Amino acid sequence: MRNIKLTIEYDGTNYLGWQKQPQGSTVQQEIEKALKNMTEENINLLGSGRTDSGVHAFGQVAHFQTNSKIKANEFQMGLNSSLPRDITILNAVEEDLKFHAQFSAKSKTYIYKILNRPHPSALLRRRAWFVPLELDIDLMKRSAEYLIGEHDFKAFAQSGIDVKSTIRTVLKVSIDEKDNNLILFRIEATGFLKRMVRLIIGTLIQVGKGQISPTDFLNILESGEKTKFVYCAPAQGLYLKEVKY
Amino acid sequence: MRNIKLTIEYDGTNYLGWQKQPQGSTVQQEIEKALKNMTEENINLLGSGRTDSGVHAFGQVAHFQTNSKIKANEFQMGLNSSLPRDITILNAVEEDLKFHAQFSAKSKTYIYKILNRPHPSALLRRRAWFVPLELDIDLMKRSAEYLIGEHDFKAFAQSGIDVKSTIRTVLKVSIDEKDNNLILFRIEATGFLKRMVRLIIGTLIQVGKGQISPTDFLNILESGEKTKFVYCAPAQGLYLKEVKY
Repeated sequence: MRNIKLTIEYDGTNYLGWQKQPQGSTVQQEIEKALKNMTEENINLLGSGRTDSGVHAFGQVAHFQTNSKIKANEFQMGLNSSLPRDITILNAVEEDLKFHAQFSAKSKTYIYKILNRPHPSALLRRRAWFVPLELDIDLMKRSAEYLIGEHDFKAFAQSGIDVKSTIRTVLKVSIDEKDNNLILFRIEATGFLKRMVRLIIGTLIQVGKGQISPTDFLNILESGEKTKFVYCAPAQGLYLKEVKY
Repeated sequence: MRNIKLTIEYDGTNYLGWQKQPQGSTVQQEIEKALKNMTEENINLLGSGRTDSGVHAFGQVAHFQTNSKIKANEFQMGLNSSLPRDITILNAVEEDLKFHAQFSAKSKTYIYKILNRPHPSALLRRRAWFVPLELDIDLMKRSAEYLIGEHDFKAFAQSGIDVKSTIRTVLKVSIDEKDNNLILFRIEATGFLKRMVRLIIGTLIQVGKGQISPTDFLNILESGEKTKFVYCAPAQGLYLKEVKY
């Protein structure tokens, strides 16, 4: 038995997220189907975690076990020639059998792109969240600082999720203004809750618009209460950037 | 009669280019249709020039004449709410009747994006030309310098085009290496021939790959001969960036 690790870029626009499901096409399903064609095995591909419908990835990581003798780089070439063009295998390497894409992960980094200008963008309509109102970036930066460290992120978790704990550790956060009116939010944590980044972004935007203050943001984080200002930002601005091991 | 100037961003992926035609959807047609809905007039929208099927625009410019009393900024808002999301009106202003999007233009700038890395990109598949082979950027830069000034660009014009002259003046050229393995080519000229930028890029890539030298590139330009190295780069990497008046 061999263990292969894949690093995957995808455009989430046309997929119902990462995780396989009966209702439609997902990234996991597409890759498993292509692996079956190559190996004639029913391969179970395990991702570092799920991404929601419409969310993109620059570097999702997944692993699978196989009895085939196909080399790692041949998997990469074979998959890239048979997968739809909105999924790309960036890297394929053989790992020892202990490697697990989810459980071996030390941290994950997400980025979120906000287009902040008066008019939408034809070219970025599926790549960023269009926010026409002027934003106070400094207030957003000050609020984002509060996220660093170990916290109970209950306020920024999808309601009703079934997890043992909503405590997570955020390692790094940054907000940068880029060319072309783009605001780039970057967050690295040891783990994330379902919808966590999108709920954080949606709430940070309320700070940027002046609807709530950085202190209000801190209160939401500390109280764990999902007030009406905890808003879920749309999927198309979110990218799983990197998984570290 | 009033004269309105529009600045337009579009994602060319789903259009048969700018210019209206019977076989399918074009950017000009979509905007004319939306203008007809707003004004109930049969409006003739004149662009600064055509873009081919699949070519994008950050700043195409067009003008139209109308008897309606709709203000320029109301045209912008109305069009953006009714147009498909892959076409955005970035600006709408009233100009005097002498203004003509094509004939008043002083220069046009195009950019071309090349993704130069070993594997394709899911997220950029419709936004750049994927070139996996290593490129010598310095040789490409040296060749591109030869384009500056007034030249007969016959070698870099689509064969069989019917134009009075294939002489054009290139004002500026640059090639820059960006983050994420992108190479950005930028060219400003007083005018362009059909396919000119794509033929230049396709040929510069032959220089980058070492198939021909900068001197060979200069010989192609000076002789006007379309040798087998004059290759047309694909549409999805090309963007009409700006039109100056």
